[in-house]
Amino acid sequence: MAENLSGNMQEANTGNETSVSKIVGKQSVAFRKPPYIIAASSIAGKKEGEGPLGTLFDQIVEDPMVGKENWEAAESELMKMAAQKVLTKAGLKNTDIRYLIGGDLLGQLIATSFGIAELGIPVFGVFGACSTMGEAMIIGSTLVEGGYANKVMAITSSHFAGAEKQFRFPLDYGNQRPYSASWTVTGSGAVIISNQKDPNKNTGEPDIVITGFTTGKIVDYGIKDSMNMGAAMAPAAFDTIKQNFEDFGIKPDYYDKIITGDLGYVGKNILIELLKEVGYDITNQHMDCGMEIFDQESQDTHAGGSGCGCSAITFAAYILKQLRERNWRRILFIPTGALLSQVSFNEGNTIPCIAHAVMVEAR
Amino acid sequence: MAENLSGNMQEANTGNETSVSKIVGKQSVAFRKPPYIIAASSIAGKKEGEGPLGTLFDQIVEDPMVGKENWEAAESELMKMAAQKVLTKAGLKNTDIRYLIGGDLLGQLIATSFGIAELGIPVFGVFGACSTMGEAMIIGSTLVEGGYANKVMAITSSHFAGAEKQFRFPLDYGNQRPYSASWTVTGSGAVIISNQKDPNKNTGEPDIVITGFTTGKIVDYGIKDSMNMGAAMAPAAFDTIKQNFEDFGIKPDYYDKIITGDLGYVGKNILIELLKEVGYDITNQHMDCGMEIFDQESQDTHAGGSGCGCSAITFAAYILKQLRERNWRRILFIPTGALLSQVSFNEGNTIPCIAHAVMVEAR
Repeated sequence: MAENLSGNMQEANTGNETSVSKIVGKQSVAFRKPPYIIAASSIAGKKEGEGPLGTLFDQIVEDPMVGKENWEAAESELMKMAAQKVLTKAGLKNTDIRYLIGGDLLGQLIATSFGIAELGIPVFGVFGACSTMGEAMIIGSTLVEGGYANKVMAITSSHFAGAEKQFRFPLDYGNQRPYSASWTVTGSGAVIISNQKDPNKNTGEPDIVITGFTTGKIVDYGIKDSMNMGAAMAPAAFDTIKQNFEDFGIKPDYYDKIITGDLGYVGKNILIELLKEVGYDITNQHMDCGMEIFDQESQDTHAGGSGCGCSAITFAAYILKQLRERNWRRILFIPTGALLSQVSFNEGNTIPCIAHAVMVEAR
Repeated sequence: MAENLSGNMQEANTGNETSVSKIVGKQSVAFRKPPYIIAASSIAGKKEGEGPLGTLFDQIVEDPMVGKENWEAAESELMKMAAQKVLTKAGLKNTDIRYLIGGDLLGQLIATSFGIAELGIPVFGVFGACSTMGEAMIIGSTLVEGGYANKVMAITSSHFAGAEKQFRFPLDYGNQRPYSASWTVTGSGAVIISNQKDPNKNTGEPDIVITGFTTGKIVDYGIKDSMNMGAAMAPAAFDTIKQNFEDFGIKPDYYDKIITGDLGYVGKNILIELLKEVGYDITNQHMDCGMEIFDQESQDTHAGGSGCGCSAITFAAYILKQLRERNWRRILFIPTGALLSQVSFNEGNTIPCIAHAVMVEAR
């Protein structure tokens, strides 16, 4: 296997116009000038703060209303806090950011629109359900590497109470949750992607770069249970991860970690089995943000965490730290999304799913 | 004024790293290798088919349910038809398209997810309300010009009945509509953006290229009336158009047409007045898709058409035709979006708006 991605990708890049094409295989891209992740922020709710990653978040917000009048405004406030925090950590002003690429789970992305309006940054609203952070990082890194921006911000959020109201039942209804149900993370995470190295990094710390990506297709195995999203999303994660391996001609051990967004305990097993059936064993590399963020037993979170905020704050607080400390060198980050709505669910439809894979490396 | 954009943009491009930067001014981009629009499709509803542009659409669907069980499935079907039609017109297969960039007005973009799932094309879901076609074309053209794709599809849809159910009242309620209300277009439009010229164009026809864009910021003037979206969106259109002029150092007569998405009769006047106040008179160039698509008097559509489908099918059927026939040489296409949701409206919030400008030229 080639020692760096660049070499590997040129080998994989048959059939395209030039030997330096960025297009790899059926669904992937390899950057020629990998953009840098120069800063990240994570704002988390009280329950997330009490979980295994609690000490790593930039800020824990104890009040679920975040001082606002409703759940939607609370989520917008979390996103505003994440945006301001990542700017502060990077030593940048809002005018230094060319584009904000962001999204959330609420209908018509209102957490995002109301959260980041006053920053005055040109905006691309994106939606991939809980895969949104992956989509935002992919679009953001193409805008930077393609020469359309020097710096962009990718940001997402979710809120437990807002998501329950949107997709299932209002909290006051007090419904029972099956063990296959996930717990939507209250939080917002952001990263700044730049065409320049991080000027603030400590001596000896590696550069964190996005070396490529694999964009997901919509995968629908006919599952209709919104209380079992892990099972619905696992085939989408399978499809994208398999394609990443095939496009680059690599095996699971190419990565130190293969990190899905929020498959949880149910979805994780399905993913591992599906990949085994086609000859890939990711048991040693696999990790799931939804399983890392809560302690299943003591926190009563059933299948694990979920929501656009889950993979975003786990990436910002935990995954980047492991890369910066050189505990991991190369990872595949695959936020997973269930593209249902309250309306499609009530109309008896299946849950189409998608997963986007981002290749991140410490150099 | 420089005769072609490329020259003009280099002049405008002060303060950036190199003289060939694609970054122009505060919010704009000028492509070095402008991507080609090689095909477009438009599927329209019955009422749209009876309007002034009726003869130009690829297909008119008489049945508002499009043979499906509910409005949402009907809209998905329109999008599927638009996607298949544009592939057919371009002589391409789904596997020739690297990415589909699409969105709609329904919560969690279900018209898109269910509409295009079976095509099996990698997807980026985008949301900018009725500005979505602008956003999709911008992201699509950067993916092509940046070298990440040879061909992409940008696609959006809307449906009158689905939008009324989503944002206002179910049709059965029979509510009165004020004259400032717009009429959501039933339809879906798609374009294919390519790094190669259209191999099927007729002899003598020009190439249609996307030469650049200006990405919108969220603009909120505090308007709360979802029955007067034109007034809410006009300031966003103003902001983006003014920025386009400033970034490129151009005046309104640089364009043959300056075409907003769906401001309608109310919003149009506000836009023209706002621009006059800062020294730009676009009276001679301005056109609004929402005003073109219906005959206000005979069709009882009040302020005009709106929805993600409005600017998309007007662009695909009418605007491209004018460019292909060399009636217009350069246009600025500015789909406008009102980023409200039923929830934000019911909670008494304002309507944040956004507008994205795409520069299109016949060469």
